[in-house]
Amino acid sequence: MVANRACIVRLSTYKNALLRLQSLGFKKVFSDNLADAAGVTAAQVRKDFSMFGITGNRRAGYRVEGLIEQIREVLGKNKIHKVIVVGAGRIGEALIRYRGFEAGGIQVAAAFDIDPAKFDADGAVPVLPLEQLTDFVAEQGVELAILAVPDIAAQQVAQILASAGIRGILNFAPIQLRLGPDVVVGNINLELELENLIYFISAGRKARTP
Amino acid sequence: MVANRACIVRLSTYKNALLRLQSLGFKKVFSDNLADAAGVTAAQVRKDFSMFGITGNRRAGYRVEGLIEQIREVLGKNKIHKVIVVGAGRIGEALIRYRGFEAGGIQVAAAFDIDPAKFDADGAVPVLPLEQLTDFVAEQGVELAILAVPDIAAQQVAQILASAGIRGILNFAPIQLRLGPDVVVGNINLELELENLIYFISAGRKARTP
Repeated sequence: MVANRACIVRLSTYKNALLRLQSLGFKKVFSDNLADAAGVTAAQVRKDFSMFGITGNRRAGYRVEGLIEQIREVLGKNKIHKVIVVGAGRIGEALIRYRGFEAGGIQVAAAFDIDPAKFDADGAVPVLPLEQLTDFVAEQGVELAILAVPDIAAQQVAQILASAGIRGILNFAPIQLRLGPDVVVGNINLELELENLIYFISAGRKARTP
Repeated sequence: MVANRACIVRLSTYKNALLRLQSLGFKKVFSDNLADAAGVTAAQVRKDFSMFGITGNRRAGYRVEGLIEQIREVLGKNKIHKVIVVGAGRIGEALIRYRGFEAGGIQVAAAFDIDPAKFDADGAVPVLPLEQLTDFVAEQGVELAILAVPDIAAQQVAQILASAGIRGILNFAPIQLRLGPDVVVGNINLELELENLIYFISAGRKARTP
């Protein structure tokens, strides 16, 4: 069974909320707590869990630790997933140094660029020449890539990633990548997100003006 | 009239595609071109345009320059929008230095942090103490903020932003902000996006395994 995207997003949100509760010393959690954390109803939480056979006692709640394990299993997160960052510019560099992924079982294995000034084979996260990407992906069994190259290069580099065997791309370039059905693409477009906020702020102001 | 989010996202995508076409020297564009760039049908493009009274000749196409102007007008992008970045850590720092916003009429006016080591009042983008945020927002008429603080601090800082008069927040912390109806929140959660990709990669593999 393949769940829809919205449901998977909620499961991730529940899991992150559970990790925070766990770090605060909580042992038990109720669907209402998770509903609050995720901004949905408690009924939705129970429905999501039952969809994946995640069981709990409605009155006694769920064990935080067991619940995290079960959600991780669903999300395929009980193993370490390696990701490569392609493009070591402003955004790429921040991602290379970002430590937030580790708790989620995601490890930035290497970064790739075409600029020799960026190369750093001995760094905690090595920055390697783009030509080494295909071999690295094959040797390390990497399936995930973050694409943070200038938009003019994004389609071409995405095709290199696909040929190398990358199966999922998180794309920061503000273009629509064209790839075969074997590659899943997620898009992050900061400017577009800001534009949305601007539009809704303006629309809200007009709506309030008599 | 307030359009839905998906429609506004498409308008932004059209506009970004048009800016790229313009930079390549294109003067005219057809709905099919934009449809390709945005990954939708040409009928959808024409429907979106007619919804906002954007006119063109189906056979002769649209003038690129005029179309950019019209879309910018709809998106409220014909003036400069100031945004502040709160939290000058890895992500915040990348955003402060990111130049991609400028073409879209978005200017990073200042950043705020609580760590004196980060302060830099004379930088191209000044990094100021969090205590100065409320005055700065009032003086400069800022309505937009990017929230890039540790998740443990995000809700509290978001409330400071709302009290200061910020109307739109782009939130990088992996938590659900609780704010009044006057503040629009957009969320960017990198780990969650990667988790989605991992899930769909695994689901695709299972679907192909006989």
